[in-house]
Amino acid sequence: MYKYLNQINSPHDLRRLKETEIEVLSKEIRRFLINSVSKTGGHLASNLGVVELTLAMHTIFDSLRDKFIWDVGHQSYVHKMITGRREDFTTLRQYKGLSGFPKRKESFHDHFDTGHSSTSISAALGMASVRDLKREDHSIVAVIGDGALTGGMAFEALNHAGQNKSNLLVILNDNEMSISQNVGGMSNYLSKLRTTPMYSKVKGDVENLISQIPAIGKTMVKTAEKAKDAIKYFVVPGVFFEELGFTYIGPIDGHNYNALCKALKQSKNISGPVLLHVLTKKGKGYSLAEASPHDFHGVSPFKVDSGKPLSNKDKVTYSDVAGKSLIELAEEDQRVVSITAAMPAGTGMTGFSQRYPHRFFDVGIAEQHAVTFAAGMAAEGYKPFVPIYSTFLQRGFDQVVHDVCIQNLPVTLLVDRAGLVGNDGETHHGSFDISFLSCIPNLTFMSPKDGKELRAMIKYAGKVNGPVAIRYPRGSAGEVASELGEEIITGKGEIVYEGGKDVVIFALGHMNDVGLKVCRSLQEQGIKATLVNPRFIKPLDEYLILQQAHRCKRIYTIEDHIKIGGFGTQVLTLLNDNQINKQVKIFALPDMFVEHGNVEILHDFYGLSGEKITESIIADFVSNASEKMMMSR
Amino acid sequence: MYKYLNQINSPHDLRRLKETEIEVLSKEIRRFLINSVSKTGGHLASNLGVVELTLAMHTIFDSLRDKFIWDVGHQSYVHKMITGRREDFTTLRQYKGLSGFPKRKESFHDHFDTGHSSTSISAALGMASVRDLKREDHSIVAVIGDGALTGGMAFEALNHAGQNKSNLLVILNDNEMSISQNVGGMSNYLSKLRTTPMYSKVKGDVENLISQIPAIGKTMVKTAEKAKDAIKYFVVPGVFFEELGFTYIGPIDGHNYNALCKALKQSKNISGPVLLHVLTKKGKGYSLAEASPHDFHGVSPFKVDSGKPLSNKDKVTYSDVAGKSLIELAEEDQRVVSITAAMPAGTGMTGFSQRYPHRFFDVGIAEQHAVTFAAGMAAEGYKPFVPIYSTFLQRGFDQVVHDVCIQNLPVTLLVDRAGLVGNDGETHHGSFDISFLSCIPNLTFMSPKDGKELRAMIKYAGKVNGPVAIRYPRGSAGEVASELGEEIITGKGEIVYEGGKDVVIFALGHMNDVGLKVCRSLQEQGIKATLVNPRFIKPLDEYLILQQAHRCKRIYTIEDHIKIGGFGTQVLTLLNDNQINKQVKIFALPDMFVEHGNVEILHDFYGLSGEKITESIIADFVSNASEKMMMSR
Repeated sequence: MYKYLNQINSPHDLRRLKETEIEVLSKEIRRFLINSVSKTGGHLASNLGVVELTLAMHTIFDSLRDKFIWDVGHQSYVHKMITGRREDFTTLRQYKGLSGFPKRKESFHDHFDTGHSSTSISAALGMASVRDLKREDHSIVAVIGDGALTGGMAFEALNHAGQNKSNLLVILNDNEMSISQNVGGMSNYLSKLRTTPMYSKVKGDVENLISQIPAIGKTMVKTAEKAKDAIKYFVVPGVFFEELGFTYIGPIDGHNYNALCKALKQSKNISGPVLLHVLTKKGKGYSLAEASPHDFHGVSPFKVDSGKPLSNKDKVTYSDVAGKSLIELAEEDQRVVSITAAMPAGTGMTGFSQRYPHRFFDVGIAEQHAVTFAAGMAAEGYKPFVPIYSTFLQRGFDQVVHDVCIQNLPVTLLVDRAGLVGNDGETHHGSFDISFLSCIPNLTFMSPKDGKELRAMIKYAGKVNGPVAIRYPRGSAGEVASELGEEIITGKGEIVYEGGKDVVIFALGHMNDVGLKVCRSLQEQGIKATLVNPRFIKPLDEYLILQQAHRCKRIYTIEDHIKIGGFGTQVLTLLNDNQINKQVKIFALPDMFVEHGNVEILHDFYGLSGEKITESIIADFVSNASEKMMMSR
Repeated sequence: MYKYLNQINSPHDLRRLKETEIEVLSKEIRRFLINSVSKTGGHLASNLGVVELTLAMHTIFDSLRDKFIWDVGHQSYVHKMITGRREDFTTLRQYKGLSGFPKRKESFHDHFDTGHSSTSISAALGMASVRDLKREDHSIVAVIGDGALTGGMAFEALNHAGQNKSNLLVILNDNEMSISQNVGGMSNYLSKLRTTPMYSKVKGDVENLISQIPAIGKTMVKTAEKAKDAIKYFVVPGVFFEELGFTYIGPIDGHNYNALCKALKQSKNISGPVLLHVLTKKGKGYSLAEASPHDFHGVSPFKVDSGKPLSNKDKVTYSDVAGKSLIELAEEDQRVVSITAAMPAGTGMTGFSQRYPHRFFDVGIAEQHAVTFAAGMAAEGYKPFVPIYSTFLQRGFDQVVHDVCIQNLPVTLLVDRAGLVGNDGETHHGSFDISFLSCIPNLTFMSPKDGKELRAMIKYAGKVNGPVAIRYPRGSAGEVASELGEEIITGKGEIVYEGGKDVVIFALGHMNDVGLKVCRSLQEQGIKATLVNPRFIKPLDEYLILQQAHRCKRIYTIEDHIKIGGFGTQVLTLLNDNQINKQVKIFALPDMFVEHGNVEILHDFYGLSGEKITESIIADFVSNASEKMMMSR
């Protein structure tokens, strides 16, 4: 089935193939990718786009000695296939299986872990600096997409590299896309480079032309000289990168293996930083993905012939609810706008962007700018909402503190993908936002138990005259009734289940589902449990929490977040400050980076499933009972 | 003394002055600035550099209607003087006095608060977008230095603005400096623009030249046409900005009021985003500051004639100790390198940079890149140290999580200016780092009680094979003995003062000074107190903390940090998890942004002074005693 691919167990094996065989191999790789990802799910279109590039890189460089850094890293599948991990693709992104991103612990061919955007040039430059200090001479290659190039830290790194002058190859993998259509001045500039082949050729022509100009008097000569200088200065393709100190090569057809090898060789021989501009097509070789690369960026298992997902669940997600609720709010209040950092679809905002194109802003992969841009709008009286994944909000942390909260501006952060996200793993779990947001003064911080409550919270946020954050997870928002949930009142939670006073459980957000299961299971065991949905992380519902903590024998908290600085510790602190010195058992994620895998499996493994929590609470009662028996003997 | 300045109570008053009078006014403003700042301390050189620019802005624009956003904001003094706050300069940066940064709550002429670098274009674009949605037509002007332009978020904003096409004026205040000498490819590019006046003039010349070329056969004509296209494309001054979608104007002499007014008027009439490149001299008009702008960036009170500081304390600061300790470590271990984001002097690294120029990296105002660049070096076996102010580390938070800690790389963050910093105020206090760093897995996190211990911790960090953070404050590091402090052992604290078991105080870092005062005062009142220096925030010294908490009647913690997610809550959680259900009284900063002012005053106001803490503890004993008396009745 895979004549050549089956022979490739390490990059060295590539060198035995002829050019025509490489062509067949490329096709086999694409076939393998489509088949494999159609079964496991994963990132498809980006990997189909870099087949020839990856093969050429492994032909010209030695990935044990030379270092490749894959920006974002979801385009590293071909690299993984070539470096001995082909057979692991059946386990891709599954618990204990192959990661969907480069991982140093997975292979000696992976030199730097990635996941978030725009880090590769910084890491590569650090590696190059060490190489130079050690007086070694291997190559360092960062592969970065045109989307990732809009992230500010990529520019910070280009700026440093341009001065530093270390040998460094930055391959700009230009497919005119981030996950969605790319935006920004840089994107327009790259378009010009792409569509003006004249760029690379004209330089020689113009110099030639100038040299042929007849000297008509002194003035003309002088002007011609000046012009020559100017042209030497300006008629350089990729002047943007050249001005920063890079040598620009390109644009090169990213699906032409030979041309790529030639350009890589050339780059290798240039001293100082080089930017190699490669044009690729996202989804290349799979017509459905070529036609609609966004839909085949990250996919669930699907039918290869139709492209349709295997399981057609059509669940309404929290992101969907956020998008719809924001449209409702925007209808009522014309000051409501939505801002995304290159994630219009992922955050459920496609509908909003169509309904209110002028009130929707996609700023590119630029979370820092997104937050401060929102602050600027809020300072002028508008009500910006910023839907953003929890893990990416880490990029905008300073801006939330410095630009939004110090000025107490009405910006609402819709913190999507909060908690474990599953198959993307450690770089993508949203497990730190409670710790880094709760400490910020002026912020109102909530988490809804379901989609209905999310809708009510968004409505509520529209009325708050200050910064708000709402955290909610990836996935289904449960049954979302058409009527609006209970009205949200500042700092007020609710009792979800009143079962008695043996146990009170404070379950945050979607963990109320788990809490409810636990309460029912405990009830069956004769333990009377009450479930409280605090709704607010900040300000806490002090009255309700203290009342229930005071009344109940044992106190538990559940959250889909790391324990340190999380919700449970804040409940504990509240009790402590109010002289309720009872133990609080905190169910939360452990103090470690959680690997990739199915969320249910991970929750169970880390003791956050209904079963594990129930067991743990029952054990407390049993040990307590036996202690009492011991004491009464 | 100030003939014209005394007449300026609002920007409108400027319009009554003639050009020659403006010249005199500029001199008066400089004299006022030098005199005033020499008494209060504050930012001097940057303000001396923008006198004419600020006057021109207030001449051409109306700052009640039009919005100025001052990037970083320490150059807003002239703006403050012009907008009715001249008399408040005697209180500059003092408790309850005039802020050293723009503040919306201070004046209707201040439209956006700043403090950190590189935020202005984002905020301005947000404001411009609201103006456009409201169909209003005022101007939005961001003033950004060439240093701040190296911050990634400025690029993110340029990228968005270049596509967005809103009317927006970005004034690039190019003085070839950040606080220290500016670095990076962008800086080199701006140098070229500065030193090549040809840029602006040559365009016309070349077009003219081309139009005069005689047509020598068809090929030549074709080439000439191509060349014309190419030249139209390339012979544009400021091509870097033009390519992003801006209209570039400049460079303009930033000390020529008339030229500035003309250029501002011109900019106002161009539609879409405009970048106006203005050349200024930091420290202009005060020869000492012109000669050494870095020394007059932020100053303590000084003698005007000599430039020497009024009080010559010559205290050794924590930053000094960090710098010296790092040199010692670098002598022993050649893998040790130091990386700064444009703060070589502020972080005490001047000595290191001189001793080890090749192992010292100033990456520009680029905290994100600094952290990931360090991660890249660490991935290749080096031991990078990143001295960085606590408040600026907020910019690199995601990189600490994603690039350093997930991969468990041996990068040490030297978190300088942790806790309250004093006169810079709310934008600069380092009061969140415990919350946002403690939650990160794999991180070892410490805080030294004095300079001696900082030295020992840096030595220790050199041996840890994973990420480390050490937080320490601004200011004097106390008596630094030449011998090394006690050896640091992972997760081990120490008893600083053993006074008995009525009270145990866990005081973090430099708050041990306060803790010691408290213990002695309590002792005088007959309350026996023990002081514990935990040294480690992560991992906590569980044994010592539990032992002392178990043994002592009352438990207190002291930290120079916000309470939520801080050190005290972590002690509380540890006790809770180990069934010690005693109350812990946490002395920490309140849940609000703390204003500017002297640190001692602020600590006292927020209950963190020795006196206030002592009072509070005594009150606990008194109330406890009276409760007991009540009960025994």
